Amino acid sequence: MERIIIDMDEVIADPMGAMITWYEKEYHSKVNYDNIKEGSWLKGFPDEHHQLVLEKLYSPGFFRDLPVMDDAVDVLKEMNQRYEIFIVSAAVEFPNSLKDKHDWLLEYFPYFTWRQLVLCGDKRMIVGDHMIDDHLKNLVHFKGNKLLYSALHNREVQGYQRINNWKEAAAIFLK
Amino acid sequence: MERIIIDMDEVIADPMGAMITWYEKEYHSKVNYDNIKEGSWLKGFPDEHHQLVLEKLYSPGFFRDLPVMDDAVDVLKEMNQRYEIFIVSAAVEFPNSLKDKHDWLLEYFPYFTWRQLVLCGDKRMIVGDHMIDDHLKNLVHFKGNKLLYSALHNREVQGYQRINNWKEAAAIFLK
Repeated sequence: MERIIIDMDEVIADPMGAMITWYEKEYHSKVNYDNIKEGSWLKGFPDEHHQLVLEKLYSPGFFRDLPVMDDAVDVLKEMNQRYEIFIVSAAVEFPNSLKDKHDWLLEYFPYFTWRQLVLCGDKRMIVGDHMIDDHLKNLVHFKGNKLLYSALHNREVQGYQRINNWKEAAAIFLK
Repeated sequence: MERIIIDMDEVIADPMGAMITWYEKEYHSKVNYDNIKEGSWLKGFPDEHHQLVLEKLYSPGFFRDLPVMDDAVDVLKEMNQRYEIFIVSAAVEFPNSLKDKHDWLLEYFPYFTWRQLVLCGDKRMIVGDHMIDDHLKNLVHFKGNKLLYSALHNREVQGYQRINNWKEAAAIFLK
């Protein structure tokens, strides 16, 4: 059974969407999407609000209520029958998110078990046949097949096979 | 730089010691060391107290105050200069332990960073040159050099190179 390593944030969960919704409601202000580039999504927010956004990101509960990416639940349910799936999140940077991420995953994806969740800081020690991730820093160290999950911050990245949504993932992995 | 994958519980932290100390004080009763065998350390405690011991294990805070294994701090400080170290704990089964384990590690081993901690359910997707672990279930899937860290529950296991304490680890890795 082939092993697929799947990222959490911006791939099956939508923290960026949750942050933008929260921010625009709280501050009656618009995020500048053009400024969100690889490694600098914070730049979509005005400089004077960076601290607020970071505090929100580190706060307990933020990762507990994230929206689920469209079709991820249905597509992964079937992929979970055919592949060995691990959900691998570089979450240790946000210690308050760790239990939230466990609880979120098992609530929205009840067919996964705790055995399939990995919370790490760095993904260079993870091995598998395929990796689906929105961050180049994770894909570069991976030895298997690399799939870039499209996100606002990676729009300009070239040279990787992309997955734009979970219907496209189904077309690749469930054909 | 060679990569060493190091387990947390029973290797650098002592949850068994903490549990026995707590239990014997709380119940004025002795743990039966002879009954603690591979995969059944719970059998060291009387049947009627298994539920209490499990509740303690799952409770918030239990993993925050564990004793550190002798010499682990000093030996790992030097190993951390010479090797790429990851502390990998199969902790996701205990969601309340996740932040506790992060906070514990960075308090007692301040030279490690959050990038070096991995909290998982299963270790079969972890790759490295050496693994130090007290559980056969983790060592069996590992492709590199396997080192069994001696614990009460693995006394009868044969066929593995053992590390009995951190002075022995220093003799192997810092010679």
